[in-house]
Amino acid sequence: MHSKPSLSALTAPLGLLDTVRAIDSGTLTPEESLQTCLDRIKVHDGIVKAFCHMSSDETVLNSGKSGPLKGISFGVKDVFDTADLPTEHNSPIYQGHNAGWDASIVAMAKAAGAGLLGKTVTTEFAFFHPGSTRNPHNLDHTPGGSSSGSAAAIASGMAHFSIGTQTGGSVIRPASFCGIAGYKPSAGLLPTVGMKTFSWSLDTTGLFASGIEDVAYVASVLTGRHLRTDKDDAPISPKLGIFRSHLWGDADKAYKQQFEDLLKSLSRFGAQLVEIPTTEEYIAAFHAHQMIQDFEARQALRWEYETHADQLSPVLRQTLDFAQTISATDYDEARVSAEIGSLQVDDAFEDVDAFISLSAPGPAPAGLESTGSSVFNRTWTLFGLPSLNVPGLKSEEGLPLGVQIIGPYMSDQKTLCIAQWLEGAIKRHLDTE
Amino acid sequence: MHSKPSLSALTAPLGLLDTVRAIDSGTLTPEESLQTCLDRIKVHDGIVKAFCHMSSDETVLNSGKSGPLKGISFGVKDVFDTADLPTEHNSPIYQGHNAGWDASIVAMAKAAGAGLLGKTVTTEFAFFHPGSTRNPHNLDHTPGGSSSGSAAAIASGMAHFSIGTQTGGSVIRPASFCGIAGYKPSAGLLPTVGMKTFSWSLDTTGLFASGIEDVAYVASVLTGRHLRTDKDDAPISPKLGIFRSHLWGDADKAYKQQFEDLLKSLSRFGAQLVEIPTTEEYIAAFHAHQMIQDFEARQALRWEYETHADQLSPVLRQTLDFAQTISATDYDEARVSAEIGSLQVDDAFEDVDAFISLSAPGPAPAGLESTGSSVFNRTWTLFGLPSLNVPGLKSEEGLPLGVQIIGPYMSDQKTLCIAQWLEGAIKRHLDTE
Repeated sequence: MHSKPSLSALTAPLGLLDTVRAIDSGTLTPEESLQTCLDRIKVHDGIVKAFCHMSSDETVLNSGKSGPLKGISFGVKDVFDTADLPTEHNSPIYQGHNAGWDASIVAMAKAAGAGLLGKTVTTEFAFFHPGSTRNPHNLDHTPGGSSSGSAAAIASGMAHFSIGTQTGGSVIRPASFCGIAGYKPSAGLLPTVGMKTFSWSLDTTGLFASGIEDVAYVASVLTGRHLRTDKDDAPISPKLGIFRSHLWGDADKAYKQQFEDLLKSLSRFGAQLVEIPTTEEYIAAFHAHQMIQDFEARQALRWEYETHADQLSPVLRQTLDFAQTISATDYDEARVSAEIGSLQVDDAFEDVDAFISLSAPGPAPAGLESTGSSVFNRTWTLFGLPSLNVPGLKSEEGLPLGVQIIGPYMSDQKTLCIAQWLEGAIKRHLDTE
Repeated sequence: MHSKPSLSALTAPLGLLDTVRAIDSGTLTPEESLQTCLDRIKVHDGIVKAFCHMSSDETVLNSGKSGPLKGISFGVKDVFDTADLPTEHNSPIYQGHNAGWDASIVAMAKAAGAGLLGKTVTTEFAFFHPGSTRNPHNLDHTPGGSSSGSAAAIASGMAHFSIGTQTGGSVIRPASFCGIAGYKPSAGLLPTVGMKTFSWSLDTTGLFASGIEDVAYVASVLTGRHLRTDKDDAPISPKLGIFRSHLWGDADKAYKQQFEDLLKSLSRFGAQLVEIPTTEEYIAAFHAHQMIQDFEARQALRWEYETHADQLSPVLRQTLDFAQTISATDYDEARVSAEIGSLQVDDAFEDVDAFISLSAPGPAPAGLESTGSSVFNRTWTLFGLPSLNVPGLKSEEGLPLGVQIIGPYMSDQKTLCIAQWLEGAIKRHLDTE
């Protein structure tokens, strides 16, 4: 039985880098830091339902005593294999399945000293059929997906960072809905080894944390790359390309108005803004995404489809049924469309530092039966470009509204710095409104 | 206890397409075909040691009764997950490990009606530390690796086809040493989903069978692509680029002499031959291969390295120890070198249909402690190009000597057709010598 905290208590993300600094300065011990998370889980997770399998308190408190992530806790989406916890992909087919080893990203986080709290709820095989997780900002709304639990665990302050995946929009969308930082790195920057494959061309490992400097710090530690944003001066006047895409008309009006108001402030704060036109080639690439995803998913999930079709959700089964009809020629043509779209976007980056857009078509939809739409994220996954959700804006109803930053391939540090500049700019914008 | 067959009885590959035709015409039943393989395994595998885990006879005989591969048997390298057999990667860390599902390529082969005989011996994690498999052509020599058992099972007529992987030269080399057809498709053509990752940029699923038309038929069935070579006229006068590389001087002299003699015959048979120069950019890409492989392997095998280092072979442990010192910058530079080398090779293909080269630096080395060298295969894996081992030539000592054909990216059918033309040309060459 869980006591019921107030809704505002449910949405208090933990500052990861603040915690690192407190531990480094000796004002907080790693055990105290980890205990805070365990305590929060006990109070909150009965309501939020972000976790599906938990490490024992003892295991968490005894985790890495050294390393740059000592005292830092994390959750990992239950599509990553783990040695000591079940890996079920939110599918009855894998109920009680034990993978027997840790996926690369899990082993890397543990080796850096982080404490694995548990597995976070995913949609079925990271596709559309939702899990039980609720949005900490409004329990009647979806947290987004497919990395539902990873995002909600951060928003409700139960973990310092979490690991998710994005094949369409499964990092940026839930980060937007939950009002936290989400980071989908350039393709290949974080390993997918040990993750359940849905589409090998698209599946990308991503990170969630409270703010941009927090995801940047974790990414820096895990990749051994200079990605931190807290030690660099943010750019003074980033040149941003406003990318509305062909689906701008479908997005929520109030959200778009907030975005336009923000753009005016950004201009005042020194940003240069230019409109990026949506080309036919971009739209062709947008449609190619689904073709590539479905053609690869039918191979990736072949065993499940052949031997356990009755245990697949209707939405997944219908998708895989349809996918059997996609020809190799259709797939090859989709890959060519993707390549053409990607090259055209590369060209557009010659004139701007990053793109700015909405993170989703609207705030988190009401209800838990859908996790929302990935239409504002798919192409960036397809092109392998670094993208971030920058939190701060809120709807009139108090639901988070994310702003998306997209950068050139392998320009992750610069893209993170621009996102951090934007995070600060959003605060100034809200203060001066 | 096994009776000891003569060495010539050990090297009688089964014609896969001949078997398909016999089953289709009703002169052979699928059960009879599968029983032949089970019988051969009982006689030969005690000596050859190609298999490490076997399906029961009943399971094999009751496998797919319909589909284009009905009555066709296969073995799969023990780095692919299987639902009904252990998956041990030839590592004590995974002794008795049961993955609980079938890797995509296994599920696809079963769905096409093929009967899974068992798992074939791999080197440890498909790297260098060898398994127990012997070369059917001379039991004191290595069968090559890392797909050792997959190649030996075909050479000794125990399976109609087998599935292996190539990260450096692990399909083409063992096919060359064992005197069979080996096919490493264009990157991505066959899924690696459910395969133990060593290097995600390089790992490629490949096929072994008796002859080129056999691997082409299986690839056609598994990919749903038009890849068959038996229904197309082979090219009359292929234009071949002779690719010697910077390591030609290190190759076996007698092998090179046979290659030169063959080239003279190919010229007489109508092939146009041109020399492809080895550029500095190619050599840089050659060296980039190892950097990329090792940097990714240290991430892919992070859990094993962190928690079971004492159970890694010395060669793998030393490689991973060294890999910890590779910087992200080194890796990024290696990827750029690979891209430059790849683009240059693409240009070279504008003048020729395919490259022709040696499949290995020599015949299978004596002894089982090494599986030989991949130096003639690494770059083609790195560039994701389709390549084949074409069998037929033999050393004076009776060991197979393979000829390698390499084609442009995604030109698999044309490359297979040229390989088939070469296979016939080698027979004519040997007949007229």
